[in-house]
Amino acid sequence: MDIHQAKIQYVSRPGILDLAWGHPRPGLLPVEQWLDAAGGALRSHGWQALTYGAAAGPRPLVEWLTGHLAEAADGGTRTSEIFVSNGASHGLALAAELLVKPGDVVLVDSPTYHLAFGTLRDRGAELVGVPADAEGMDVAATAELIGRLARGGRRVPMLYLVPTFANPTGRCLPRQRRVELVELAARTALTIVEDDTYRELAYEGAAPPSLWSLGERGTVVRLGTFAKTVAPGLRLGWINADAAFVRRLTGLGYITSGGGVNHTTALSMAAFGASGAYLSHVADLRRHYAAQRDALLAGLRESAPDLRVSTPDGGWFLWAELPPPLTAGELAPAAEANGVAFVPGSRFFADGTGGRSHLRLSFSMLAADDLAEAAARLGRAVAQCSPS
Amino acid sequence: MDIHQAKIQYVSRPGILDLAWGHPRPGLLPVEQWLDAAGGALRSHGWQALTYGAAAGPRPLVEWLTGHLAEAADGGTRTSEIFVSNGASHGLALAAELLVKPGDVVLVDSPTYHLAFGTLRDRGAELVGVPADAEGMDVAATAELIGRLARGGRRVPMLYLVPTFANPTGRCLPRQRRVELVELAARTALTIVEDDTYRELAYEGAAPPSLWSLGERGTVVRLGTFAKTVAPGLRLGWINADAAFVRRLTGLGYITSGGGVNHTTALSMAAFGASGAYLSHVADLRRHYAAQRDALLAGLRESAPDLRVSTPDGGWFLWAELPPPLTAGELAPAAEANGVAFVPGSRFFADGTGGRSHLRLSFSMLAADDLAEAAARLGRAVAQCSPS
Repeated sequence: MDIHQAKIQYVSRPGILDLAWGHPRPGLLPVEQWLDAAGGALRSHGWQALTYGAAAGPRPLVEWLTGHLAEAADGGTRTSEIFVSNGASHGLALAAELLVKPGDVVLVDSPTYHLAFGTLRDRGAELVGVPADAEGMDVAATAELIGRLARGGRRVPMLYLVPTFANPTGRCLPRQRRVELVELAARTALTIVEDDTYRELAYEGAAPPSLWSLGERGTVVRLGTFAKTVAPGLRLGWINADAAFVRRLTGLGYITSGGGVNHTTALSMAAFGASGAYLSHVADLRRHYAAQRDALLAGLRESAPDLRVSTPDGGWFLWAELPPPLTAGELAPAAEANGVAFVPGSRFFADGTGGRSHLRLSFSMLAADDLAEAAARLGRAVAQCSPS
Repeated sequence: MDIHQAKIQYVSRPGILDLAWGHPRPGLLPVEQWLDAAGGALRSHGWQALTYGAAAGPRPLVEWLTGHLAEAADGGTRTSEIFVSNGASHGLALAAELLVKPGDVVLVDSPTYHLAFGTLRDRGAELVGVPADAEGMDVAATAELIGRLARGGRRVPMLYLVPTFANPTGRCLPRQRRVELVELAARTALTIVEDDTYRELAYEGAAPPSLWSLGERGTVVRLGTFAKTVAPGLRLGWINADAAFVRRLTGLGYITSGGGVNHTTALSMAAFGASGAYLSHVADLRRHYAAQRDALLAGLRESAPDLRVSTPDGGWFLWAELPPPLTAGELAPAAEANGVAFVPGSRFFADGTGGRSHLRLSFSMLAADDLAEAAARLGRAVAQCSPS
């Protein structure tokens, strides 16, 4: 395929209701409000919105973010602890550039966001999945794993996970495990890279405290993004880290050369935040995505009763377990034939061996009616593949 | 200093006319036109301008660029040979990520853009300046250098240079040397990374042919940017390379994860191009920056006759040689005391030993009157430092 064929990454396939893609629903992208914000930023900052920007990001966005994070009761983040990035994926690449050397072991949650694996392997890391159970990673067993690796002469500088409304499971790491995890990082050389992409999409009260807010400075690097709350195409996010780490980021050669990595867009986001558009838009998103979650859950309950499905309190994903002995690989052709698609669970395990009986089902991209129909199709596919 | 103190990278110092910064003149940044383009893109593409974008960049910009490069008689670039980047600095970081391993030798022009050095050293490269004379790099001597390095067991995968309206010298590598250079790359493992940042700012007829247009596919990676022609804060540029290299770029983990690195802004640039705003704006820039070049040259001729100054046909920089035995380091305090600043020439040499009697003087940021006054101040400083 010509890599430029698609204007956008997602190519809709005729006849398929696609639960595979973690993309926003088109109607929820704030086209008019973003145009207002961009206009406001250019009018109020004039040429300063278009010239080189400060390496860590423009002051107006850094200040708005600092205030927003404080209001969200998410630890006392200081302005010196923010680096404006090109989104969470870019933040992960930058964090790995500073933390990981070729040959290092990087620990990853089991399961976790599969497209992080490529970024980490680009650094020459060997990925090892941490021990986990139905509530998330097992911290004590992970501590033992780190000890074994260290005794084998391996450096283990980094752990990557999405502890809040996780991709792919939708679940949150319990608070007690969060505390144990930051304590583990404080007593080892491990830096936790907390991908906090879904925090704002909380549908049942507040999200749990971030690892960033619980940990000692220097133990956690948090990745934030506006991809899910505003728009992915902006490529705008941020890194929270201790001030020394932020200084290392601004000292990278290409940052020193080009300045702030998304200056003009960052100033537009500051205007979007300062006007109140951000808060009202995110409140809308919570309502809409919660309704989409409920539509898919209700549809699955009715049409695919044999699936065991999580009920996440936030984020974009359901994690579904097939009735034994059915595997996702066996289900895929039947799903395709019925006009529905998903991501097989094994993709989210670093070694590809776990999750064979699991599916990731995204409820972000489709409207409620389509989600109900997708659930019906999935139910038919499961029924066709199950022993009668 | 608080790294967020400045809203923009450049901090003006009271009383100093600064010839050090390669930044655009504020009045030449197209605030209103950019707002029109951004509005046009959001209105015509709607939500598709805000969602994830194709990894190599959105089709509208890739197609406009392909057509623009063809009109500029700059080789037959195909759409599959374009990767939309976050600017030339980001392009260099990506190219180095694919080409360079820790411990490799990367050749750099003598002199060349100093802030490229950090990006290359971040990859663990050892930088070696190529032999050069007043016309630019000496290709035959460089071939010998590569041979010596190879015999010493060193990998030499990459050469970095700015062959057209160079930073810092303003000069263009002569055509014959361009041909020799791409032939050298074709018969060795060397990939030329051609930083073509200043090509469009040609004040005396067309720029010379790019190395990209002269070389066989696979020998040259060209870095383009909209930083000088439109606005640096956009962080938007492109890489020209053979299609296989572009596929390697789109296959990087963080690109696969986030999609096009500046999707929304890229679609705005496509609108800026398609409307004709780009061509008319660049025509304006050529006129203005040529006049600024002439103002600084005339001022120096009058006020600093002892300086030997290049007369560049394009770009943003003059390269000035001090009367012996004066060095840039000796001149700096006197220049500061007289209220003028420059970048010392030694910064542009990888080993820091060349260029001690040279200054880089940027005529991009100040208006003609200020440039004339800056020349007068520099002349006073030189006179104060020279033996009477």
